[in-house]
Amino acid sequence: MTVGTLVLLRHGESTWNARNLFTGWVDVPLSEDGEAEARRGGELLAESELLPDVVHTSLLRRAISTANTALDVAERHWIPVRRDWRLNERHYGALQGKDKKQTLETYGEEQFMLWRRSFDTPPPEIDPSDPYTQEGDPRYADLGSAMPRTECLKDVVTRLLPYWESAVVPDLRAGRTVLVAAHGNSLRALVKHLDGVSDQDIAALNIPTGIPLRYDLDEQLNPENPGGTYLDPDAAAEAAASVASQGR
Amino acid sequence: MTVGTLVLLRHGESTWNARNLFTGWVDVPLSEDGEAEARRGGELLAESELLPDVVHTSLLRRAISTANTALDVAERHWIPVRRDWRLNERHYGALQGKDKKQTLETYGEEQFMLWRRSFDTPPPEIDPSDPYTQEGDPRYADLGSAMPRTECLKDVVTRLLPYWESAVVPDLRAGRTVLVAAHGNSLRALVKHLDGVSDQDIAALNIPTGIPLRYDLDEQLNPENPGGTYLDPDAAAEAAASVASQGR
Repeated sequence: MTVGTLVLLRHGESTWNARNLFTGWVDVPLSEDGEAEARRGGELLAESELLPDVVHTSLLRRAISTANTALDVAERHWIPVRRDWRLNERHYGALQGKDKKQTLETYGEEQFMLWRRSFDTPPPEIDPSDPYTQEGDPRYADLGSAMPRTECLKDVVTRLLPYWESAVVPDLRAGRTVLVAAHGNSLRALVKHLDGVSDQDIAALNIPTGIPLRYDLDEQLNPENPGGTYLDPDAAAEAAASVASQGR
Repeated sequence: MTVGTLVLLRHGESTWNARNLFTGWVDVPLSEDGEAEARRGGELLAESELLPDVVHTSLLRRAISTANTALDVAERHWIPVRRDWRLNERHYGALQGKDKKQTLETYGEEQFMLWRRSFDTPPPEIDPSDPYTQEGDPRYADLGSAMPRTECLKDVVTRLLPYWESAVVPDLRAGRTVLVAAHGNSLRALVKHLDGVSDQDIAALNIPTGIPLRYDLDEQLNPENPGGTYLDPDAAAEAAASVASQGR
């Protein structure tokens, strides 16, 4: 029996995705293409009559704008909103603001892929004086020692799960359709947890942008549809392939 | 001693303001001019370094979009959001969707001004089969018998105050800067309460769109600056005069 329906939505292309820069916690806006992806995400929700009752977002503009736009298009702009840093993108450490192609050339394929896709190897920490640090950003003022200076995917799983358990699960158990508008790596962390993906296999999992991914969860909050169901499966397959080739 | 800072923001021009129609609970979007007003509102917040810690909005798109846009411009898109129907515009009853000028011509100056500006005379109730009713709208599903079919300003005060006390006041007492993004009449109702405006005098009070209005509140939540302080006083004075002439 389906207890709750979860909808994951990765933000559309940002201005830095378009420029092929590592972004992480740098708060860049959506590109025009990204705005169009968010509108398309909203159309897919409306066409599928998959109407969220509540939305959870990260504290980053690209996820917030994606949620705002998609919900406006789906006529669900009025639902309750929750935001939390625990849904943020992975902190990319000293790589934030760096060009992906140049990083690949400087450090080589092996190191590059380790930083991008290994489960437990974070990039070097960002320096507090780096122009792309979030040190002193008021939205993280309450984090104290929990404030990351770099993260691997394992770190994202660790900081995400308390929010999942304390904030998202209660909404699901109340029978709500819950939209989580977030990022490539925070959503990979969540999917890893939901589908029980191994530390190894998660490396190959890419979540395309702007295409809502539905999970029907049973009473143990296990997916009745393992891997989830994209609202536009053809576009999802095409987009996943293109994400995998980033940095080339 | 200032306990909390309250910032009121009336939404920018909607497509129906532009067409001079009674709107009420009909969920119309901002016009292009309205979007520009919202951006200007955000610029005023940023220039004044009056940065909200939390935002409360109605359930109507024109207030939600105004808040989203203004907060994005002011780099406060990430703050917590609360929404409630009790911040909605006054329900305009059977007048919803009607042309203001035509209504003035049909019913005459006295009746028109009574409906628009009297404290306790609501327009006729809207019929449940009226194309502009909100009967059956999922966002109001929980209201039950509290669902209005018409409202006078007195009704708005009555339904607004429980939300003010239970949701906005606790944020103010916690020392937060609180943005309330709402509507001409829900904000008039709030200002009436804050400034102790009489049932008679409230008729003459117009709140201009898109210009943040700051109230510094003392421990009794009385304004230290009675009447509030507009972040752009010249524009506010000009706009208030223009609102007063609507329907002419």
